Amino acid sequence: MTAAPAVVGIDVGGTKIVAGLVSAGRELLATARAVTPARALGERALEDAIDALLVQVREGHEVGAVGLAAAGFVDASGDAIRFAPHLAWRDAPVRTRLTERWALPVVLDNDATAATHAEASFGAAAGADQALLITVGTGIGGGFVVDGRVVRGRNGMAGEFGHMRLVPDGVQCPCGGRGCWEQYASGNALQRFAREALARGPSILADLCGGDPAALTGPMVSEAAEQGDTAALAAFSKVGDWLGVGLTNVVAALDPAVVVVGGGVAAAGDRLLEPARHRLQHSLVGAGHRDVPPVLPAGLGPDAGLLGAADLARRFIER
Amino acid sequence: MTAAPAVVGIDVGGTKIVAGLVSAGRELLATARAVTPARALGERALEDAIDALLVQVREGHEVGAVGLAAAGFVDASGDAIRFAPHLAWRDAPVRTRLTERWALPVVLDNDATAATHAEASFGAAAGADQALLITVGTGIGGGFVVDGRVVRGRNGMAGEFGHMRLVPDGVQCPCGGRGCWEQYASGNALQRFAREALARGPSILADLCGGDPAALTGPMVSEAAEQGDTAALAAFSKVGDWLGVGLTNVVAALDPAVVVVGGGVAAAGDRLLEPARHRLQHSLVGAGHRDVPPVLPAGLGPDAGLLGAADLARRFIER
Repeated sequence: MTAAPAVVGIDVGGTKIVAGLVSAGRELLATARAVTPARALGERALEDAIDALLVQVREGHEVGAVGLAAAGFVDASGDAIRFAPHLAWRDAPVRTRLTERWALPVVLDNDATAATHAEASFGAAAGADQALLITVGTGIGGGFVVDGRVVRGRNGMAGEFGHMRLVPDGVQCPCGGRGCWEQYASGNALQRFAREALARGPSILADLCGGDPAALTGPMVSEAAEQGDTAALAAFSKVGDWLGVGLTNVVAALDPAVVVVGGGVAAAGDRLLEPARHRLQHSLVGAGHRDVPPVLPAGLGPDAGLLGAADLARRFIER
Repeated sequence: MTAAPAVVGIDVGGTKIVAGLVSAGRELLATARAVTPARALGERALEDAIDALLVQVREGHEVGAVGLAAAGFVDASGDAIRFAPHLAWRDAPVRTRLTERWALPVVLDNDATAATHAEASFGAAAGADQALLITVGTGIGGGFVVDGRVVRGRNGMAGEFGHMRLVPDGVQCPCGGRGCWEQYASGNALQRFAREALARGPSILADLCGGDPAALTGPMVSEAAEQGDTAALAAFSKVGDWLGVGLTNVVAALDPAVVVVGGGVAAAGDRLLEPARHRLQHSLVGAGHRDVPPVLPAGLGPDAGLLGAADLARRFIER
């Protein structure tokens, strides 16, 4: 009997690239990471960096396929990346090129789609036919599952919840719009709310940043909250409430059985999720006549993207 | 050769009930309508009114099945209505009861779901695998199609877009919330914006309502707009822009190939749809790197619900 070969999942984000070798039993056998090459260095530099990580993690193993999850818009065929704001690829036939380069089957998908697939298949939403995943980090990403399958949409761009406009003439967003959800429920928003709280008097948070709003960082807010600082806790609570405002809109639209929240900021756990649940329970239309979905922390952490990509690659060769 | 029997579609709304006899060739052979009995009269009165319409339209025809589209929340089994704000049914086993009463196969679905099914199957979105339907009437209803199937969600409540909160502390909504989309893009909003415009000086609209804001009606706004009145046109344009604001959020979430707008207010056509298209084109995230979906008027008009229900009934007996 020959053991099924391992597969490699690679998550290509705007700041870092993470690769992982995954066994047929879904065990993460090896990982490697690198800083994402500057966009100006071009597509070849980006693909070379990805190639170097593949070489590292596959060392000494038979690899059956590679799954690539990228922070960009993948075309309907799954062959090319149309646009990726933080990466060098522009209308780039990424899958086609890497398939040739590696002489291996390559599967290409959006990173949020891959993470959603992972959480819905073997993470916090495993077994739910209708599920919503929201990742709260620098911004907001997400994806959703209908009848057990991740919805891709016409342009592979379904799940772009972060740019829902929640506040007319609200905070300016790099997308060009104003009042986008991710300006109120994200790592950036947490820092902004914490800076506003500094002005309200002495706090552990003020001590940590020496009273200088410009010196305040996300980890300082987490640390101050850990110590029970009112200013820091208020900032988390405000982000959590705004998380709930946006969730209420998305849950009304999709009616999922479960909501999973991942991403860096979600590491705060109930400090973030409790105010979100409270808002959802109180604002969701028809809340008294329906099952309001539970809001759960993600089960796979920051590896969801690469694990999802690896699983999509495995399904591709096994089907 | 025996001809396939006709089916009956019945759309049960908060103000009226409309029934139609539909041939196997999808021809509407007969229709009948009645005012919806007051909620206080109870479930039996409502079902008697529906029964009377069925008797009227089936006269002289062989009927194979009945499809019922209701303005309420249908449970996952399709047997009962859990809750319907404007109807007498409360946790009522409607399908079970009417199947017994009529000794005919009965299919029960939400009215927006039935209308979405109709528009996506043989209306304005026919052939689109990913489609979004929005109905703009007194409020906002809607539904969406993924991979050719109407999405129902965990509670059969997917597509409740009207209560997206678009304005913090905005206009009070009967749902209990504030700033819901349907308070800005609906027949009610049109009248409110038109009343506000009255204050800005003389207009055809002011003449039509005798200068009395309380006497102003929706049809007056349409008539004044027809005559080129600036105040009335501004009200339509404002509703259209808000329609586009909400569409931008929903399109970012679902990434449909086509958007269909129906409902009473949508009869205004481009007067409503042009500002919505303009807003969508300019506000949708990644608009320059994706196919922005066309925004089309509904193809089936106010009969979409009953035609959809009839088609679901036909599919049920033919499968």
